[in-house]
Amino acid sequence: MIMHTLKSFLATVVFLALAFSGSSQDKDSLTISTIFGNALSDNTAFHNLEYLCKKIGGRLCGSPQSMQAVKWSETVLKNMGADTVYKQELKVRHWERGEKEIATVRSKTKGSHDLHVCAIGGSIGTGEKGITANVVEVKDFEELAKLGIKEIEGKIVFFDHPADPTYYYTFNAYGGVAKFRVFGAVQAARFGALAVIVRSATLSHDDYPHTGVMHYADTVKQIPAVAVSTNDADNLDQWLKSDPGLSLYLRTTCKELPEVTSYNVIGEIRGTEKPDEIIAFGGHLDSWDIGEGAHDDGIGVVQTMEVLRLFKALGIKPKHTIRVVVFMDEEMAQRGAARYAESAKPPEAGKTKHIAAIETDRGGFTPTGFSIDASPEQVKKIREWKSLLIPYGLYSLEKGGSGVDIRDLKPLGIPLIALVTDSQRYFDYQHAANDTFDKVNEREMQLGSASIAALVWLIDKYGL
Amino acid sequence: MIMHTLKSFLATVVFLALAFSGSSQDKDSLTISTIFGNALSDNTAFHNLEYLCKKIGGRLCGSPQSMQAVKWSETVLKNMGADTVYKQELKVRHWERGEKEIATVRSKTKGSHDLHVCAIGGSIGTGEKGITANVVEVKDFEELAKLGIKEIEGKIVFFDHPADPTYYYTFNAYGGVAKFRVFGAVQAARFGALAVIVRSATLSHDDYPHTGVMHYADTVKQIPAVAVSTNDADNLDQWLKSDPGLSLYLRTTCKELPEVTSYNVIGEIRGTEKPDEIIAFGGHLDSWDIGEGAHDDGIGVVQTMEVLRLFKALGIKPKHTIRVVVFMDEEMAQRGAARYAESAKPPEAGKTKHIAAIETDRGGFTPTGFSIDASPEQVKKIREWKSLLIPYGLYSLEKGGSGVDIRDLKPLGIPLIALVTDSQRYFDYQHAANDTFDKVNEREMQLGSASIAALVWLIDKYGL
Repeated sequence: MIMHTLKSFLATVVFLALAFSGSSQDKDSLTISTIFGNALSDNTAFHNLEYLCKKIGGRLCGSPQSMQAVKWSETVLKNMGADTVYKQELKVRHWERGEKEIATVRSKTKGSHDLHVCAIGGSIGTGEKGITANVVEVKDFEELAKLGIKEIEGKIVFFDHPADPTYYYTFNAYGGVAKFRVFGAVQAARFGALAVIVRSATLSHDDYPHTGVMHYADTVKQIPAVAVSTNDADNLDQWLKSDPGLSLYLRTTCKELPEVTSYNVIGEIRGTEKPDEIIAFGGHLDSWDIGEGAHDDGIGVVQTMEVLRLFKALGIKPKHTIRVVVFMDEEMAQRGAARYAESAKPPEAGKTKHIAAIETDRGGFTPTGFSIDASPEQVKKIREWKSLLIPYGLYSLEKGGSGVDIRDLKPLGIPLIALVTDSQRYFDYQHAANDTFDKVNEREMQLGSASIAALVWLIDKYGL
Repeated sequence: MIMHTLKSFLATVVFLALAFSGSSQDKDSLTISTIFGNALSDNTAFHNLEYLCKKIGGRLCGSPQSMQAVKWSETVLKNMGADTVYKQELKVRHWERGEKEIATVRSKTKGSHDLHVCAIGGSIGTGEKGITANVVEVKDFEELAKLGIKEIEGKIVFFDHPADPTYYYTFNAYGGVAKFRVFGAVQAARFGALAVIVRSATLSHDDYPHTGVMHYADTVKQIPAVAVSTNDADNLDQWLKSDPGLSLYLRTTCKELPEVTSYNVIGEIRGTEKPDEIIAFGGHLDSWDIGEGAHDDGIGVVQTMEVLRLFKALGIKPKHTIRVVVFMDEEMAQRGAARYAESAKPPEAGKTKHIAAIETDRGGFTPTGFSIDASPEQVKKIREWKSLLIPYGLYSLEKGGSGVDIRDLKPLGIPLIALVTDSQRYFDYQHAANDTFDKVNEREMQLGSASIAALVWLIDKYGL
């Protein structure tokens, strides 16, 4: 640590000495190099993540842990150099998982087996006594509809649709299967199912069930929903093949409690020239309860807080106001995103306007670029910075989607940008008990922090 | 697995159906997509790696495990579809680690502490009784020379030079510190040191000592050398600051045994049009003894073997001979590389000539491109394939170094290419006990297999 601090200091001295000589491109390249060098030499952000994951842990909106995390965010934003820290109040749902879920297969030929399951977020519970029924396996909603009430009524529906491994970008594979988790219960209930058990939306083969949100429809009976690990989905598939008459006992005690007050947390460094023009960047503070919310999205929170520290450490005074937005409730109902978007519109916005919004919520893996949801001219402008970004692996500067927490800003015409990271490992951890601090590589995480800081610095300097 | 096999079959049918229609660029893009899709759907290579790591394990050249691995390579190459499998005989060194190394600090003020150490590869042992001496910490060879005989004689020299975290590409950081491991003993012995203890050449902060090779000089007394984990290097540094008079007890029983016979293993699919023109690709089979040699370089071996399976699975019959070279002894003396280069030259080469050689030895992480040691025209040709490779993250197609196992082919004018992977995590594992199968992500590994297969396929189709 002593060495690192000294090193940071020396880097800053060299940076200041050189920043006033050389060409504009050279100077930009030097600043960005200093941002990356400092981020890779300093462990403040990594220790912040460790605290959030290990001392606070999983923090679903509405939970006591999420409130602890709100307080923690206020403190850390101040420590990281924000000159203003404040909260935006909102109401959030408060769903609780209850006791450890039970799913037991009972087969005359295959014996009794406990499956690795977890309730899907927002699901009702089975009741104390649980539910026992036969199981109907389906691949998709089409097969479900084909089987119809005759085959489905009174059964537990097993959605067993593996994510497609052939996509390079794993979010595409996830996009193909998340619907079974989100809408499986409502679709199966239309045909009289008693409950659903859904193959986890992951490409890995292991024993971790992956939760995530699900939605009911007002007009359809609510039935319980659980996710099952991919290994146990394969097992259940095999057992059903040899004994279609096996029964499944499900017991979950999750429930929805009254809504509670919660908060987005905001920390700013006020701009020296255009304080009413804002460059916003953030991640979401809430996480699923069964893990530690490391990659999803503790990383995003500490990376964006780290941008403030980097600006302070390098003595960079932004012309525009730079703002960290710590979003609440990304996982359940995106109320924090809605609340923030409200604040960016008149009348609440007052004289302020956003010149860009950046989200980081794709895991703390080596960054590969930015996905830009903006006008062709704005995309072009960012691509002109390519030679400054490629030395740090940021090759991909493409038009594309941004993220769930900033998409509500789109109708306001604000350019939206997402940090894109190597996606290969993300769904090994997302929404599962193994999304823990020890799965994070400090360098990969800090490359993300520095990537965002570099982009914020470029937007602050050149506009968009 | 049933699903995967069916999927591969269907992909192949679609591939064959479409490969005879559309533009050349479309057809190439389709073939490459099919290569990646098949690699990401099939777990043969991952199971091969599991066997190599878990059933055979660490396999330093000269060891019984390395001979088991040679036999395993012959079998697997046949299983993967090679029509010819043979061995190239060579002599290798046979160094053995002996008993678990001991390094105990004894300080009047700080008490007694065991350090996490391991003998550096090729080191002599301390003798049964061990060595006890005071410790002199130095940062580099310059500081060592400045202290001179007066301060060094009779002491144990502690090289404590942390790898520079500010490099983006971690091999550059490694390049700055590996010399202390390789040459530390010989440099310290010139000034009368009794032994050296060297900070591990890694950017991570943990308790794993990292071994690797070291060299003695004929004219300088041989002294024992051990590597110490970065955490314990930091500890020793602190203890020395408060008690410069502390003593260190070192005991290692490693020794050099007589040289033994070993082998490179080669597997080929003979070319249909130009069988005497060879596209060679490989990794090294030997690994350090303290881990399982997963990332370094079991990965490289199974990835290049997998290229044969992919060609067979997709029904691709190469025009040129495609050849997997499983190199022996990369870690200790690169005798396998030398032996292979000999075979590529007259007279042994006969009528055959190489049109390209590809090495994969940078860990099984997400590939980012190829480093090309070839003529400007050849680099340009590969860069013309950019649009085919970028969809798989292969953005970086740059002139640069290749690898230790193929560099001896350079004087023959053969274009050399290395698979480049995300380097952030590599030195967390390299040469340490945690370089194990569980640290490998199947998708990342298979993206490497497919990247090599795609490049081999392009070179076979278009030449270089």
